[in-house]
Amino acid sequence: MTQKLYLEDLAVGQIYRAGPRAVEAEEMLRFAREYDPQYFHTDPEAAKSSMFGGLIASGWLTAALTMRLLIEGGAPFADGVIGAGGELAWPRPVRPGDSLRIESEVLNIAPSRSRPDRGNVICKTTTFNQNNQVVQTLTAKLIVFARAGRG
Amino acid sequence: MTQKLYLEDLAVGQIYRAGPRAVEAEEMLRFAREYDPQYFHTDPEAAKSSMFGGLIASGWLTAALTMRLLIEGGAPFADGVIGAGGELAWPRPVRPGDSLRIESEVLNIAPSRSRPDRGNVICKTTTFNQNNQVVQTLTAKLIVFARAGRG
Repeated sequence: MTQKLYLEDLAVGQIYRAGPRAVEAEEMLRFAREYDPQYFHTDPEAAKSSMFGGLIASGWLTAALTMRLLIEGGAPFADGVIGAGGELAWPRPVRPGDSLRIESEVLNIAPSRSRPDRGNVICKTTTFNQNNQVVQTLTAKLIVFARAGRG
Repeated sequence: MTQKLYLEDLAVGQIYRAGPRAVEAEEMLRFAREYDPQYFHTDPEAAKSSMFGGLIASGWLTAALTMRLLIEGGAPFADGVIGAGGELAWPRPVRPGDSLRIESEVLNIAPSRSRPDRGNVICKTTTFNQNNQVVQTLTAKLIVFARAGRG
């Protein structure tokens, strides 16, 4: 991915990809101690007796890693990946040693009526593990800027 | 918040609160360098010329801090805060020096038909800054366990 895209470059159905990115237990523990200190995220031994049967990543770490992959090419927009919100699902947990990749599909493009320099884009980003199992879906409302009016 | 709640203890309309939690520029920069390296999250000087007019937190940091507050009392469930997903919105950014607090309201409670030891609870968590402006809403689908059948 080298070219950076403006609103005019987008089309419904386009797919962008990024990854893989490995996730080790150490990063999962570090993130969870700070932001999601629950035993199934912070204590590998105790986690064995949880409903997950072992240590899993905080869903918010999965989301943060997905964001990193969006920046690295999963949403190659010239002025950045600017989200107003979206819908998240974690159908399956991320476990130590997993390797994540993403696919983002452009679902909808709506040029702004009040601000001609931008548009509202809906993008569905699916995060897969190394077995091609879905660990997260994120349907995000993004602001994407137009090339028109630039140099 | 001392008592930990089971499914039987919940009622629609209940509200739980947690915070405040200060967010300084250093934490915003550290998080963004790792997970959301965009200049309006990582470079205080350059951020001044962004659409935000200055440094702002990654929305995913706002979400992670909200999760921490949920653990600290914003969702005092006995077996943890276990989310299957939800809907996120960031109507206003978090800026350096902001202080966040949350209010969580129980919107819906549905005992599981297939698994009598748990239920599906919808909880809307609103994250406010020190000026009582909403910086995030999260309507989450949570799994909450029942007391029935325990010691």
